[in-house]
Amino acid sequence: MAHEAAIGVDIGGTKIHFAVVDDNGQIRCQDIVPTRGERGAQAVMETVLTGIASMIDIHGRLEEPPPITGIGIGSAGQIHYATGNVAHALDGIPGWIGTPIKRAVEQRFPYPVYVDNDVNVIGIAEKRFGAGRTLDHFICLALGTGVGGAIFHSGRLLRGAYGGAGELGHISVDFNGPRCSCGNFGCLELYASGTGIARIVRERSAKHGVSDPGIDSKDVMAAWHAGESWAEEVMQVAIRALSVGISGIIHAFNPQAVIVGGGVASNGDLLLKEVSEQVRQTTASAMWNEVKLLPASMGASSGVIGAAAQRWF
Amino acid sequence: MAHEAAIGVDIGGTKIHFAVVDDNGQIRCQDIVPTRGERGAQAVMETVLTGIASMIDIHGRLEEPPPITGIGIGSAGQIHYATGNVAHALDGIPGWIGTPIKRAVEQRFPYPVYVDNDVNVIGIAEKRFGAGRTLDHFICLALGTGVGGAIFHSGRLLRGAYGGAGELGHISVDFNGPRCSCGNFGCLELYASGTGIARIVRERSAKHGVSDPGIDSKDVMAAWHAGESWAEEVMQVAIRALSVGISGIIHAFNPQAVIVGGGVASNGDLLLKEVSEQVRQTTASAMWNEVKLLPASMGASSGVIGAAAQRWF
Repeated sequence: MAHEAAIGVDIGGTKIHFAVVDDNGQIRCQDIVPTRGERGAQAVMETVLTGIASMIDIHGRLEEPPPITGIGIGSAGQIHYATGNVAHALDGIPGWIGTPIKRAVEQRFPYPVYVDNDVNVIGIAEKRFGAGRTLDHFICLALGTGVGGAIFHSGRLLRGAYGGAGELGHISVDFNGPRCSCGNFGCLELYASGTGIARIVRERSAKHGVSDPGIDSKDVMAAWHAGESWAEEVMQVAIRALSVGISGIIHAFNPQAVIVGGGVASNGDLLLKEVSEQVRQTTASAMWNEVKLLPASMGASSGVIGAAAQRWF
Repeated sequence: MAHEAAIGVDIGGTKIHFAVVDDNGQIRCQDIVPTRGERGAQAVMETVLTGIASMIDIHGRLEEPPPITGIGIGSAGQIHYATGNVAHALDGIPGWIGTPIKRAVEQRFPYPVYVDNDVNVIGIAEKRFGAGRTLDHFICLALGTGVGGAIFHSGRLLRGAYGGAGELGHISVDFNGPRCSCGNFGCLELYASGTGIARIVRERSAKHGVSDPGIDSKDVMAAWHAGESWAEEVMQVAIRALSVGISGIIHAFNPQAVIVGGGVASNGDLLLKEVSEQVRQTTASAMWNEVKLLPASMGASSGVIGAAAQRWF
């Protein structure tokens, strides 16, 4: 029996997901609209505000709606946690850096407002409703277009100096590797994300004198599952980089679990099985004995559910 | 004016450092004895207990000694924090794993006893008396025989599931690199520690068909400071691996500072200068703007001072 509900907003590069989520983690109503970030930060914020108003309206017309008690927002980029402003973002939404998300939403609606980055809110969904429910110390790794992380220690999110902590995709796994957009060399994201896997394919094609086949990571994963040897070779690079990276993360944090999710891992029984086997071999035994590798349990709506769940975290 | 004092014991692979340290961080009396780990865990613990008794005795005969209120121990290896037992250690002291350090000291002396690993206590020394005094979020990196880390978040040590967190030397910086004793590949420790720098020299010698010159990291550092080109080449590998590793650590933790100490960094103005310059280039600007790279400030006695300072942490 749900006692209350919160509005969740998951602002991504291509779409914005709105939902009213109850305190059992159930979505009561939802909507998805294109981000169209090229319109700039102000227009995107107007879309966010309009979408929230629409959710309040739709929810109010449901039968016996639990009362809305807050609004939680997850956004791509880094959020300055104390202010709810965007501290850092890639250039998908011109002007997004500095956008006062929290203030703008507070000014329009009479609810407490919570803002965090898109991967931290996925972590909050796992902590409140999913695979992290019973855990105090765990890491969420989201393998999507990039690689993001959320770090839970003693039951709390580890935020660091301003809220930027958890950028685990920008730990290097190859100091002689290619330059990343963050400035670092050989970042985990360059191997274990969707764009990273596509990059490995392009690099191999170039090395073999083949022109770029325009393959994306979904094609690679499908070919890998079908047993094609070229895809096996590509995925062995990704899996080895990811496994060695996860071992390093385990050595750094001594967690009870590493929860692996995101698009690259979404039909990932085989991926998680191979990564687990390698991580077992590359992790100090005292730490390996205490840690589990788990698949993310919250599915494609984890962003919007976690955004709302900030209300109860 | 000191109000009280604690006994500090720093158990290393080659020596054990005992001291009485007051609550201003001043050493009142001290002694250093060889560890002689080959005698086994029980004999080493007897040496620890005898040394503590001797400190109590010597301290009591000083003029106006502040009262001893606790005993703090730092030990190489990993400490199971809740019990004060050794959770993991290399084989320098046969039988050291499982040794109930805390219980053994508590049974012999009527003081509260605190036990942590050798790098966490160095971090506590910096937090209580040194470069971390005013900081809530910082990382200590100790570049010695190996590479160790201590992670402070919101003013507290981050310990993880059982106390193993902070093994930052076993984050990989090269997933195609050599195997480390921990099981992982290309660990930071293989490049940025004393043994790591010596390893790079050996690897280069082998590649050039030169027999192993038996050079250690002190020789390399001296030759580097003297401007010798072979040492410059070796140190550029170490510095690049370390810089890329520190950038990854900054991305993971969003700290206010990274404090770099240990033997490799001990006459390290040049080292820290070059590392700072590279880290600036390989760290996302939003995080770089919030972080400082600082030299450790507590010197060669930081282990024993930090061991005692657990009493006030």
